[in-house]
This record gives sequence, C-alpha cells and structure tokens, in this order.
Amino acid sequence: MSDLGGGRRARGGGGSARRAERTAVSFETARFIERNIPNFEILNDEALEIIERNAETVLEEIGVNFVENPAALELWRAAGADVRGERVHIPRGLARKLISTAPKSFTQHARNPERNVEIGGRNLVLAPVYGPPFVRDAEGGRRYATIEDFRNFVKLGYMSKWLHHSGGTVCEPTDVPVNKRHLDMLLAHMTLSDKPYMGSVTEPSRAADSVEMSKILFGSDFVDQNTVMTSLININSPMTFDGIMMGALEVYAKANQAAIISPFIVGGAMAPVTVAGTLTQVMAECLAGVAYSQLVRAGAPVIMGAFVTSIDMNSGAPTFGTPEAAHITYGAGQLARRLGLPYRSGGGFTGSKLPDAQAAYESANSLNMALLAGVNFMLHACGWLEGGLVSSYEKFVMDADQLGCLHGLAKGISMDANGQAMEAIREVGPGGHYLGCEHTQANFKSAFWRTEVLDYKPFETWEEEGARDTQALASARVKKMLADYQAPALDEGIAEALNEYVAKKKASMPDAFM
Amino acid sequence: MSDLGGGRRARGGGGSARRAERTAVSFETARFIERNIPNFEILNDEALEIIERNAETVLEEIGVNFVENPAALELWRAAGADVRGERVHIPRGLARKLISTAPKSFTQHARNPERNVEIGGRNLVLAPVYGPPFVRDAEGGRRYATIEDFRNFVKLGYMSKWLHHSGGTVCEPTDVPVNKRHLDMLLAHMTLSDKPYMGSVTEPSRAADSVEMSKILFGSDFVDQNTVMTSLININSPMTFDGIMMGALEVYAKANQAAIISPFIVGGAMAPVTVAGTLTQVMAECLAGVAYSQLVRAGAPVIMGAFVTSIDMNSGAPTFGTPEAAHITYGAGQLARRLGLPYRSGGGFTGSKLPDAQAAYESANSLNMALLAGVNFMLHACGWLEGGLVSSYEKFVMDADQLGCLHGLAKGISMDANGQAMEAIREVGPGGHYLGCEHTQANFKSAFWRTEVLDYKPFETWEEEGARDTQALASARVKKMLADYQAPALDEGIAEALNEYVAKKKASMPDAFM
Repeated sequence: MSDLGGGRRARGGGGSARRAERTAVSFETARFIERNIPNFEILNDEALEIIERNAETVLEEIGVNFVENPAALELWRAAGADVRGERVHIPRGLARKLISTAPKSFTQHARNPERNVEIGGRNLVLAPVYGPPFVRDAEGGRRYATIEDFRNFVKLGYMSKWLHHSGGTVCEPTDVPVNKRHLDMLLAHMTLSDKPYMGSVTEPSRAADSVEMSKILFGSDFVDQNTVMTSLININSPMTFDGIMMGALEVYAKANQAAIISPFIVGGAMAPVTVAGTLTQVMAECLAGVAYSQLVRAGAPVIMGAFVTSIDMNSGAPTFGTPEAAHITYGAGQLARRLGLPYRSGGGFTGSKLPDAQAAYESANSLNMALLAGVNFMLHACGWLEGGLVSSYEKFVMDADQLGCLHGLAKGISMDANGQAMEAIREVGPGGHYLGCEHTQANFKSAFWRTEVLDYKPFETWEEEGARDTQALASARVKKMLADYQAPALDEGIAEALNEYVAKKKASMPDAFM
Repeated sequence: MSDLGGGRRARGGGGSARRAERTAVSFETARFIERNIPNFEILNDEALEIIERNAETVLEEIGVNFVENPAALELWRAAGADVRGERVHIPRGLARKLISTAPKSFTQHARNPERNVEIGGRNLVLAPVYGPPFVRDAEGGRRYATIEDFRNFVKLGYMSKWLHHSGGTVCEPTDVPVNKRHLDMLLAHMTLSDKPYMGSVTEPSRAADSVEMSKILFGSDFVDQNTVMTSLININSPMTFDGIMMGALEVYAKANQAAIISPFIVGGAMAPVTVAGTLTQVMAECLAGVAYSQLVRAGAPVIMGAFVTSIDMNSGAPTFGTPEAAHITYGAGQLARRLGLPYRSGGGFTGSKLPDAQAAYESANSLNMALLAGVNFMLHACGWLEGGLVSSYEKFVMDADQLGCLHGLAKGISMDANGQAMEAIREVGPGGHYLGCEHTQANFKSAFWRTEVLDYKPFETWEEEGARDTQALASARVKKMLADYQAPALDEGIAEALNEYVAKKKASMPDAFM
C-alpha cells in the first residue's frame, strides 16, 4: 500500500495536489465485511458430490461452445480437450485441474488504499447496480439514463458508508455514443470516487482502454503487478462463451486483472426448471469459464459467479427474491467454496416498477440470503429496480442503508465479559430497567445498527412532518447527499492525463449508437 | 381425528348441518411447514454453554419475582426453591429438571382436523398479528379497531393459503367492553374460521371462558384429552411474572392447553444492551416460566418464546428487522432446541407507519431469520404494522403472500433424477432453450413459488393498469377476498350453543371499559 501511495505522489506531486488532499472532505466508508458467522449450508456432501459429478459429465459428454474464437479452441485443444467444430468437450477432471492455479482470494486495489478490498475467504464486498438503460426518481419518473445520472450514482456510491465498491455500469449513459461511453464511465469512477471500480467488457478494445486508463491512475508498473479492476464476464447460458465477452476476458486475464465469470440465468429458460439441474449447469459453465481464464494466464484472479432468477411461467417475466433463487444461491456458494474460488451472487433484486413494498420484500430476501450463502462479491447490492431495467435513485439509498444490516449481522455475537453483561443483570434485577444502567450507557452507541433512512418517530411527529413513506424519505436523502457531495482529492497531473486520454480516444473514432 | 369429526356430527347432527357441509366453499390452506433444510446455528457449543451457565446463575443468585401469587410461591417452595418474599431463587439445575416433563412437540387440534398443527420438531406454524388497538387500510387510514375489523381479519386469515393458524387478538375490538371482548373474539375464531386459535389471557376468568367455549366447540371430553388452544403468556422482563398472566397460565396448564411463555423485550430497556446478555436473561426467564407451568401440571404443553426488538437509542422507540434482533432470534432457537422445547419467535415486524418499503424490508428480514432460526410457532407472521400498534389490512395480505416463500424455502432441494435434470441438459445443449423442453413442461407448474399479490407484468401493461404500487395491489386483493368470503360449515347446534354462552356471559356482568 505504501508503494501505491508513493507511486501516486511521485506522478503528480505539485503543491496544488497536496493542497487538494488537505482540503478535501472524506466520507466514511466501512471496511469490507469479514464474516464472523457461519455460512448456511443447504446441501449435504452427498448432494454436492452428485452435482459435481453431473457437472463433469456435462463438460465431457455434452461440451460447451466457444463461438467465433479460434484461438480459444486452440488453447483448449492444446490443454487436452476434445474440440469438434466450436464445441469443446472437456475430459472429466481437466477443468478442475486447470482452475487450481486461480487464487483463492485477491486484493483489488483502490486509488485510496484505505478502500482496497479483499475478495474471497470469509469476506463480502458490496458493489452497486450494474447495467440499467433507465433511471427513476420520485420527481422525474422513469426515463433513459444519461451521463449526468451516471455521475450522480457514482457520487452516491462514493458517499454510501456501507458500499465498498464503485461498481461499473451503474446505469447506461445513453446520451453518449455507445463506442465512447466506457471512457466517460471510467473517468467518472476514477475522478468522482476513490473506491475500487470495474472495467468495460462490451468490446475487447474497451477492455484495453480500461487497462490503459487504470495505468494512468495507478501507474503502469503498479497495474502490471496488482489487480485494480474486477470486470463482469457473462456466459451465454446454456453453455455458450461468445467471442466478444471472451475477448474482454482475455484482455483482463493477460493484464492480471480480475474477472467475474458468471452465467446469467433465468431458470426454466436458460437452465433446467429444477434447482439441482440449474446448479449442475452453473457449475459446468463456471468450471469451463474459469478454466479458460487460467489457460489465458495461469494465476489470473477470477470470481465464480451465479446470477440466477426464476421465471413467472405465466408471463415469462423473470422473478426475484424467490425461494428457488435462494436455493440456488446457497447451493452455488457451497460449490464455489469446495472449488476454492471467490463467489459472486446476490444483490438487491426486484421485479417491481417502484421502490415500494414489493421492491423491499424481494430485495431483503435476496440480500439476506446472499450474506448467509457466503457471497464474496455482491454486484447490484443497491439501486436495482424493475428486473434490472432501471437504476432507482431512491432505492439506491434505501438498499445502501440496509447493507448496514448485513454488516451488523456478519459481526456475530460477542461472548466476552462485556457481551455476557452479568454485572448489568445483577445491577438491574427483577422489575428493574436497563436504560440508565452503567453497562447500557457504556455500550449503547455501538450496540445497535442505526438506519439513516427509515423512520422510527412517534406517529404524531411523523404525521406532522408530512406522513412520508420510505420513497419520500429516501428522496430527501438523495437530494441532501448530492448537494453535500465533494470529490475526493486527485493529483492534478493524473486528472489531466485521464481527460487527455479520453479526449484523444473520442476524437479517434466516429460516434456509434448501436 | 375421526373421533373429532364424529363427535361434532353427533352433537348437532340434523339434515341442515349436513347440507351446510356439502355446500360450503373450502379455501385451500397449506399444511404447516415441515423443514427440509438445516437451521442456522450462529453460536458454537462453547458460547451456548456459557449462556446456559449464566442463566442458571441468574436463577440461583438473582432469582425471579412471582408477584401477587402466594400459591405460586408455595409451589416453588415445595419444589425446592429458596423463596424470599416474592423473590424465587431457583437452585442450579432445578428449573431444567422441572421442564423435562414438557412435551418436545404437541398437536394443536383445529375443528377441521385437516388444519391441525404440530408444534415442535422441525415444524413451523404461522399465525397472524396479535394485539394492535388500531387498524389501517388504504382508504380509511389509521383508526381504532372494532369488532367488525376483528371479524374481517379472521376472515382474511381463514382465506390465506399460507397461514396455518387463526391467531388470537388479531386486533383489539375497542368498541366492545373490555371485559366482554374475549367472548366476541373467540366466537369469531370459532365460527368464521376452522383453523386453530388462541385463548384469552387478560384475566384468569377469561381463560376459563376460553376453555368453556372450546368445550362447546370440540366436546368436553375432547378438550380434556387434547390441546385445542395455544395462548400467549408474556413475562414482564426483567424476570417478573405477574399474577394475572400467571393466573391465565394456571388455567390453561390445568386444562392441558398450550401456553407460549415469552419474554417481551426491548433490548437495552428490559434486557441488557448486548446480545449475549439478552440471551442469558431470555433463557433464565423461559426456564423459570416453563418450569412453573410444569409445577402447575407436569406434561402441560408449552412453547419457549422470545419476542425481542432492539431500541433506537435516540428516541427510545423499538426497532425491527435489525441485525441484533436476528442474532437473538438465532441464538434463542439454539437454546430452545438444546432444552427440547418448541420455540416461538419471529414475525413480520416493522416500525413503519405504512405498508411501504420500510415495512417490507424489516418484515422480510424478520421472516427470513425466523425460518432459519428454527422457529416452531410464529405469531405476528402477517399484518403487523407500526411496532404492533396497528393491524394493517394491506400488509396482512402482503405478508401472507410472502409466507409462501418460507414454504418454498423450507422444502429444500430435490436431488432425485427429475431434480438433477440431466436428460433436459442433454436435450437442450449449448445455445438451446429450456422453455419448450419436456422436463420444463412436466415441472413448471410446481417448480416455482408464485405470488398472488406482487406484480411481474411488463412496464407498459402495469402503467396502463394504473401504475399501482404494492399497497394498491394489496388493497384490491383485500376487497376481493372479503367479497368472496364464505364461512366454513359448522354444526348448527354448536353455533347456537356458542352464541348462547356468549349472550349469557355478557348479560351476567356490567360493561367495563378499562
């Protein structure tokens, strides 16, 4: 970490940069969650072994497709797979052997080293919503997202105490040409926040831009030797790895940058309608994808992902916060731990159109299960609405507040003498009251998690203040946060170089909107 | 069970009763939950042993108060306790020895034997909100509850598929004199629903009325030999057992009817501010309370309860769905299982004034933890609002819908050949689609839990239909349910006898409103 600080100071270094550092307001961010509670193990060993055996059968007998990617086929052939056309049959045990070089845990560095995150082990890193083309807020309703919205969400993420990561496509800035968006998005994450971020995956060249801009921010040597991005590589379920996504994966793996390799599954459509069948396919897909990352560069950091929803069989709509999604999330966590891979799943998922009770039931179901499922990296932890079509301003701060509950839960139960509180019980005795006792006074500030959004006021006070529902309370908080926002200090030389890179790149290509 | 049916027919028996049985509409009710998933064990054995040791220390050294109850003190003295004034010091091991006669599990009979519930073991029985003096609905806002509201909630409970139990004071019918309310409440549960119910605890004489009316409904012999009521006996924490509540407990225990013996704790006020300290006190209080029930009648069915919330240290307001409440609920479940007692905790708790996102976050947090904590009897599973001051019509159906998720989660993961779905994975293959495949067609009706309240429609359809939030959807469902309600068949002779009992009792005393 002192390397990182030193490297950064060495690049810009002038008096104005030092002044900026001294005057900037810093917003408190909690350290990533280090669980002090057990995971919830829903499957027994026998069931897990069946799924593992079946997954190997899928890889060997059915195989997976690597499409429009002859180089990948060549790598697989050289590794000992049976390649027929674009279909790769992976002999039993080969994928598992290949993934043994993937790290069990890795550090993703932030430009502010206090915000580095450790991904793997018993840790949980929380990152915001990813991908929606729309935004919604209470006043403006639902509309296409712009780069201004994008910047707002990065600011909210930076100021959210329980959020460890700035994320990636917090919304799609649809007012920027599709081939240039990634530049503005990266610039926003790099300059408006000092939390770790994700790189672009929509084209291999955009992944390369992500690496180049990271080198400007962190220093070239630093990026060569350290992981500074975690990017999202989706598998086209069932069992298909497309050339563009794999191209981005190749760029990141070669640069030693982390990838989440994740099926995106609506159960019953892209995977079997049963939980055990879906887990089998998830495992087969992740084995193949992670193994491929290690073929590209042995030791490249990687996360096993599982994004799974169920389906409403009437309408075909994906559904969230359901028991079946919970089963899969718990089970996939067990499989990931047995493979020794960091695990990505969960999020504040909902199909609701509004940040209402449906949104909260479904999100709370998802968030709680992800904590107990042993998730290491949670994308979509806050702000997700309408099945991922919408980034919601209000839901962002509502969910981000609930993430504090996960921190509290994960702390576990203190069993020291202060925790046991026998002196307090003696002091108060039958019929007494604890509010005034010494033990309560000494502990009350830290004893309970406290919301910064929800309402606990007496009914009369609440009514006098306008009888606001959660959305209205969150709306007020969004406005206050954006008004209070101050950018974290950044070396002026680095900021200039980043802006220059973006301007030059943008000038080098015509706008594309498809 | 054929005894029960036979007994009922024998009492009334006429042709009109048989016609009523034939024509009555029956609403589907799910069987109580039989968990096929593990419990979440948050504490290790060492921590549990510390708490158990400390709880015994509390009982022996500090003792508990049995106030205004000389007979109870006499029972304790005879059992070997050291009684000083109203303070009962229970020697280490005595309470544990006394509770060994309490059943690990018991059947609570319903007048419709298909709706009997088994309380204990791996089961979970769901019962509605209990106690609020106010009701709220979208149109009428917040107002004092009436007997009409009470009947409406009993009807909604009867028609709620995932609710196993009719509950007790689903709201306080404040328009009925306080000394006569219990009669109208019992009559509503007995005639408007055929699910199991709770008895009155506000006076020993009202508990006696509950037993008498149950004898009319079930037959006198049947009630003598079977449990037909589960009633809520609160402990006045810290460590105080008041004469009225204990009087009600005595009536029920002597009649072999079940009691939930439950501290009602706002952590930091009625118990220490730390989790381990609160668990110690909960355990001590439950040991003393359950032991007392066994002193009254060895073998009387009893449930160990833990109603625990945390406190907002700014306002003193109780808070719900918090991590600290989850810690206590998980830990108390472990303690109950080690004692071999059925366990009551959890519920759809919230401090929100409205059935909004706050209500749903907090309720979902509470419901999920209660399932994994191994709760056997969950009071307040639906309809609870504003810290228990309000029974909400909309939230009743919203929560009741979410209870379906708990059923789905508890089913666990099927690992048979159909669950493994290898043929489907083979059939579909890489790049294929599961929607049309045979396995999906054969399973889709039962594969996924389905909501009857929440919205999964496409945005455009949802907007055309009025862009309704969850409260609006729930409001429509409440109206439809109450319009569709039909009472379950009841022998006319029994109905007459119940009405007669109520009328006679009411005529025998002046109205009391305090």
